[in-house]
Amino acid sequence: MNYRRSCRPVGIGEGLRTKVNANIGTSPDRASLKAEMAKLRAAVDAGADTVMDLSTGGNIPGIRKAILDAAAVPVGTVPLYEAAFQARRRGKSFVQLSAREMMNVVEEHCAGGVDFITVHCGITQRAFETLKRARRLTGVVSRGGSMLLEWMKRNEAENPLYEYYDDLLAIARKYRVCLSLGDGLRPGSIHDAGDEAQLSELKAIGELVERARRAGVMAIVEGPGHVPLDQIEANVKLEKTTCHNAPFYVLGPLVTDVACGHDHITSAIGGALASFYGADFLCYVTPSEHLGLPDADDVREGVIASRIAAHAGDIARGDRRAAAWDDRVSRSRAGLDWQGMIDASLDPAHARRVFKARVSRTQDVCTMCGEFCAMKKSKIVLGS
Amino acid sequence: MNYRRSCRPVGIGEGLRTKVNANIGTSPDRASLKAEMAKLRAAVDAGADTVMDLSTGGNIPGIRKAILDAAAVPVGTVPLYEAAFQARRRGKSFVQLSAREMMNVVEEHCAGGVDFITVHCGITQRAFETLKRARRLTGVVSRGGSMLLEWMKRNEAENPLYEYYDDLLAIARKYRVCLSLGDGLRPGSIHDAGDEAQLSELKAIGELVERARRAGVMAIVEGPGHVPLDQIEANVKLEKTTCHNAPFYVLGPLVTDVACGHDHITSAIGGALASFYGADFLCYVTPSEHLGLPDADDVREGVIASRIAAHAGDIARGDRRAAAWDDRVSRSRAGLDWQGMIDASLDPAHARRVFKARVSRTQDVCTMCGEFCAMKKSKIVLGS
Repeated sequence: MNYRRSCRPVGIGEGLRTKVNANIGTSPDRASLKAEMAKLRAAVDAGADTVMDLSTGGNIPGIRKAILDAAAVPVGTVPLYEAAFQARRRGKSFVQLSAREMMNVVEEHCAGGVDFITVHCGITQRAFETLKRARRLTGVVSRGGSMLLEWMKRNEAENPLYEYYDDLLAIARKYRVCLSLGDGLRPGSIHDAGDEAQLSELKAIGELVERARRAGVMAIVEGPGHVPLDQIEANVKLEKTTCHNAPFYVLGPLVTDVACGHDHITSAIGGALASFYGADFLCYVTPSEHLGLPDADDVREGVIASRIAAHAGDIARGDRRAAAWDDRVSRSRAGLDWQGMIDASLDPAHARRVFKARVSRTQDVCTMCGEFCAMKKSKIVLGS
Repeated sequence: MNYRRSCRPVGIGEGLRTKVNANIGTSPDRASLKAEMAKLRAAVDAGADTVMDLSTGGNIPGIRKAILDAAAVPVGTVPLYEAAFQARRRGKSFVQLSAREMMNVVEEHCAGGVDFITVHCGITQRAFETLKRARRLTGVVSRGGSMLLEWMKRNEAENPLYEYYDDLLAIARKYRVCLSLGDGLRPGSIHDAGDEAQLSELKAIGELVERARRAGVMAIVEGPGHVPLDQIEANVKLEKTTCHNAPFYVLGPLVTDVACGHDHITSAIGGALASFYGADFLCYVTPSEHLGLPDADDVREGVIASRIAAHAGDIARGDRRAAAWDDRVSRSRAGLDWQGMIDASLDPAHARRVFKARVSRTQDVCTMCGEFCAMKKSKIVLGS
């Protein structure tokens, strides 16, 4: 974590509990500091391990500073978003920015105390060529990725984040910032999952991980995205082998494209499986994904769904502390100790609301079965 | 489907789309016909393929008839619940019922037009012995299972549904009712998953499947329950081999015990994986599971989560029609045709609400990225 900040560090990687990130931040259409602070609180209260401020609208530096000041968890950003925004303010377009100007924004973020930054360094001209040949249904769905590709096309030059990667490493080392190597060519639909363009970028990222390690810089690798259930294992294993076991930070994955409005659920399915197979860090997806910018309630629901996924993966990986939590909840449940069960659960406040709205007339049991409570009968049958 | 009913039949099994069941029904604490009809409508509107009326309170036969009359989908029941309720009305307890009395209730349900019934025939005395030796955290969590075990203990006799299975088959054949062989010893916690008691019952069920086939009766097999992610594949494969490839009807599975209030999500994770590995029929779980009887909103959320799981499994199994649906949605998305995307999605009414609440000022894009829409830039970059 950035040495300028004093929040509790979060360990991400092999042998550790799967962690959860929540993306917050404004868009040009919705830019309210108050709303972002509410989203930050919602994310942290719901148990997010980290947050990313992806603001692209309003007073971006001010919002970032407010989030960094208030957040008790590590904060990540995507500096290029702000670069694009600054360019626009000066009447320029992102494609007119120089590599130096981009690096300046990166340094500004790091100097400001950001703990990890997404940098789409793996989109090389070679990966771009592969992309052009790929028959994609949904093209490029990464904002940073599409911006850099436009820059590369218009300037007929290599991705500056790749070309000046050594400069980037120097900045990251100076401020002890973790690089999150972004997957700008991630698939945006089940159709595009696992294509050559995605794998070409992953290969480039694998080399960048090695260079980061040699430079003493922490690096994690971002992964997709829209991935059918049966390809998740391969995605995780490929990342681990190609990227020298660097921590894998996946967005979702979303196991279907059809569930707009419920993509926290599609992502929980993919995230649980990814965690089981070895992903280390899950980026949540909220119910408003594909439909609009999330509000604080969406953030809450997204974090909870992602925490369920992370925990389910941890249990399946054989993490004893994870399983012990389930045992605690189930012991209370078997003892008909509903309050104890709720207190020990993942989201006690919500569980309490649901329970109270359905209070049973029958003592000791819930309204689901009432007097026909199997747990109660089980005690009679098994004499426990 | 029961030949007395005229609803559209639903095919469940190998090579077919994974189907979704929604449990509705009263409890002794909450018994309102009006509420149940609202739940039925919510289930069918949300896309449930079948419903089960698990009523244990109020005017059970009246509620069943109303549901059968109104349901455009196949309806299942658990006749023993009503047997217990009738016994109580006559001042008796379930353990005082004779096998004949139980069979009478079964026949009453079948004659009334029920399409499939859950019968816990696999809980034999042998399985009971195994259960006593099992070191379970949560004992027996099946209502029907716990009732029968209490009966077996008090009467020191074999499970009547097992002992008089031939009579049961005769009734099922007479009315063309499908038997859903219940898993009364299913694990109720991650701790208890896959123990000997569960497997002992499954073995008995395997033999009962063969006997049903010889008698010309359709049978499907019910499965758990609380199962960690890494045991789901084994559960499905074991059922398929032990039960001669009979359709597998799983409850969830729930991949963690800790998420009370969000168990539609824990179940969607398990259900998607079960479907991928070959489960044919998912029983939904609602957000109120473990906390109280669901209301119509819970039913809706439960069905949607389960449909997402079923569809994600279908895609992963290589079902081309399933993947074509995703392509339709993603094609609209790539074309920035938000209305088309929403119309083609799994839950258009909900998606429309979320979208409308976040209408963008920028033409053609949503509030997530506004002018920084990657999809839009992607077109520029790739020239499509």
